[in-house]
Amino acid sequence: MTQKNAFYAQSGGVTSVINASACGVIETCRNNADRIGTVFAGLNGIIGALSEELIDTSRETAEDIAALRNTPSGAFGSCRFKLKSLEENKREYERLIEVFRAHDIGYFFYNGGGDSADTCYKVSQLSETMGFPVQAIHIPKTVDNDLPITDNCPGFGSVAKYIAVSALEASFDVRSMAKTSTKVFILEVMGRHAGWIAAAGGLIEDYDIPVLVLFPEVDFDRDRFIDAVRHKVETHGYCTIVVSEGARNADGSFLAEQGTRDAFGHAQLGGVAPVVANMVKEALGYKYHWAVADYLQRAARHIASASDLEQAYALGAAGVEMALAGKNAIMPTIERVSSSPYEWRIGSADLADVANVEKTMPLDFITDDGFGITGKCKEYLYPLIQGEAYPEYDGNGMPRYVVLKNQLVDKKLGEFEL
Amino acid sequence: MTQKNAFYAQSGGVTSVINASACGVIETCRNNADRIGTVFAGLNGIIGALSEELIDTSRETAEDIAALRNTPSGAFGSCRFKLKSLEENKREYERLIEVFRAHDIGYFFYNGGGDSADTCYKVSQLSETMGFPVQAIHIPKTVDNDLPITDNCPGFGSVAKYIAVSALEASFDVRSMAKTSTKVFILEVMGRHAGWIAAAGGLIEDYDIPVLVLFPEVDFDRDRFIDAVRHKVETHGYCTIVVSEGARNADGSFLAEQGTRDAFGHAQLGGVAPVVANMVKEALGYKYHWAVADYLQRAARHIASASDLEQAYALGAAGVEMALAGKNAIMPTIERVSSSPYEWRIGSADLADVANVEKTMPLDFITDDGFGITGKCKEYLYPLIQGEAYPEYDGNGMPRYVVLKNQLVDKKLGEFEL
Repeated sequence: MTQKNAFYAQSGGVTSVINASACGVIETCRNNADRIGTVFAGLNGIIGALSEELIDTSRETAEDIAALRNTPSGAFGSCRFKLKSLEENKREYERLIEVFRAHDIGYFFYNGGGDSADTCYKVSQLSETMGFPVQAIHIPKTVDNDLPITDNCPGFGSVAKYIAVSALEASFDVRSMAKTSTKVFILEVMGRHAGWIAAAGGLIEDYDIPVLVLFPEVDFDRDRFIDAVRHKVETHGYCTIVVSEGARNADGSFLAEQGTRDAFGHAQLGGVAPVVANMVKEALGYKYHWAVADYLQRAARHIASASDLEQAYALGAAGVEMALAGKNAIMPTIERVSSSPYEWRIGSADLADVANVEKTMPLDFITDDGFGITGKCKEYLYPLIQGEAYPEYDGNGMPRYVVLKNQLVDKKLGEFEL
Repeated sequence: MTQKNAFYAQSGGVTSVINASACGVIETCRNNADRIGTVFAGLNGIIGALSEELIDTSRETAEDIAALRNTPSGAFGSCRFKLKSLEENKREYERLIEVFRAHDIGYFFYNGGGDSADTCYKVSQLSETMGFPVQAIHIPKTVDNDLPITDNCPGFGSVAKYIAVSALEASFDVRSMAKTSTKVFILEVMGRHAGWIAAAGGLIEDYDIPVLVLFPEVDFDRDRFIDAVRHKVETHGYCTIVVSEGARNADGSFLAEQGTRDAFGHAQLGGVAPVVANMVKEALGYKYHWAVADYLQRAARHIASASDLEQAYALGAAGVEMALAGKNAIMPTIERVSSSPYEWRIGSADLADVANVEKTMPLDFITDDGFGITGKCKEYLYPLIQGEAYPEYDGNGMPRYVVLKNQLVDKKLGEFEL
């Protein structure tokens, strides 16, 4: 049986468990050394392939590769670089195939969200027409949880856990202080197009916390919102607000875009949390605090979800097994068997059905008033945040995260202008 | 031997381990039931004493009291309410003594920062002159770490751990993305007067992260700062900035006060992180992200420091033991015996020496360029973040935090106007 090399790349925003998928890919390739030679990784994602900056992962020890499971971020570097359509920029796709040919790469594992699924699909199509067949497998990853077909996406469960736990803890804090001080706490979370992450904040309702969630899926109505905040504070003494960065007005504009200017008249790029805070302060006069979790939420390996971590690894491993089984242009998926107890298995989706399809929150996951999540949504979310998968610590109080050697192989081709 | 009741109250901003001190107080009182009767807790801190809203902690089970050790926030409620000076408002102090007399309270355990140390001291003085002696013991608590004499303050170590771990994780994220996307990450942390918390962010330098810290202790110099950011990014490809909310200009004004206005001309209360972010963007054009940890940092029981938790409990327990030994007007302290290996013991300080003294960062803890921490500072900080003291989880992926019954005892006195 012929042996081919493999190429692995990380794409788009990184997560606390994308390296666990990398670990699944590399360890499974190493376990099949008779059929898969070297695993090359793209330095800074697909850009590394285009510029022929290929990391030789065989230089990394088994211990370091295993430690990827416990290390957040993208160990090989990632990038925000979307290949244009085949019609617009065929030379980029052709360059990829050239690089694959030069380094005898027969397997392409691309770890990312919707854009990378699309790229992966196109590579599989073009490689056939160019007479250098490459098996292109997409490994799902996105904190936004917006890929179709798969029940959920690796990366999301850990962000959801971080947001639910953090919102609960901060709410306990506010409850302690509300008598004489802060009555409203606002937490801004990621999710420009879909409210999956914000929804996780809604779970704290089950822990007796008065919480309002602002989703991108629900047009923001200032008066209804202010009424809801007043009602929560009058009833409970305090209120927590979880707001998606993508929360928007009925006209489609983001709440965060308030035309804020500094003393010199320069436009200020702020978050949505201070906008909501000022709105509450002006309308109701309550003392508030606000937090913007930003990268902390998607990097928080220290509070990763065990089920998320396990699935991230399993999908990486499954991608390799599917390639070895001769599959092409597919993505391994999570299929939910039952929510309670939580059972899942690996499935697969054709990339043709994945590319350019975005999964938003089902409407029956949001309560009628638009400020909370339904029982159905909770049933969906809880399994994804189950279990604590702590990293090791170094004895000084800091987590032991690995930094790989990332040694490049010699180039065989000329320069390529990005 | 006469049996007296005890009164315990939480003061000021709460922490992830102040309830561990409460646990230490209550469990130690329960273990000395021959001398200490009921432990009353103030509902919402000292306000609960003034308004005679006393929680009867004997109604709580041993399991729930033990669970306080694992629960962030102030379980009985806290408050921001500083008693005025004896001269200005003697009636408040006299009211306290009246309430203590009515409920046969001979022990006063006040758990807070500098203001509460001052109040505690005055109560001890006045109780003697009023002929109802109360032993007043101050249990230190403050994330700001600014109490004198004690080596460190419970609450600080856990915030420091949260900030160091979070800054490390976010920096790994930025490093992954820096080639095509975010090059500068800005994390705003607490500390209006002292840079202790910001200093914890400086620890990530030991993990090969290019980091700049902005302390309240160092006058901000825009040009030097921009040069430093440029240098870090040109050398490492990215840079993390940890900025204290109290960072200030040479004229004493806060960086956060930039005269920002919304589209209607209303002043906007923002954080310092977006101000720094805009400054970097304007001067250097780098893509940035920023986060404001706010309450998340002081509520983050899920990543509490084990040494912090142990000390918080030990200081609560020691306060009771000191009271039983006949002490008055003192505060149990942490005395550092050695940093490596970390050894500490309980000491004590006279409240006369604690009240109204603020401990800022020693100048030799900050590097000459003003943007980092020295080896001496690191030697001080690492022991305080040592060890992971995880809470229990409930099987659904959420921490098991206790909510007490908080039943009030019947009032014996008339109303008191606050």
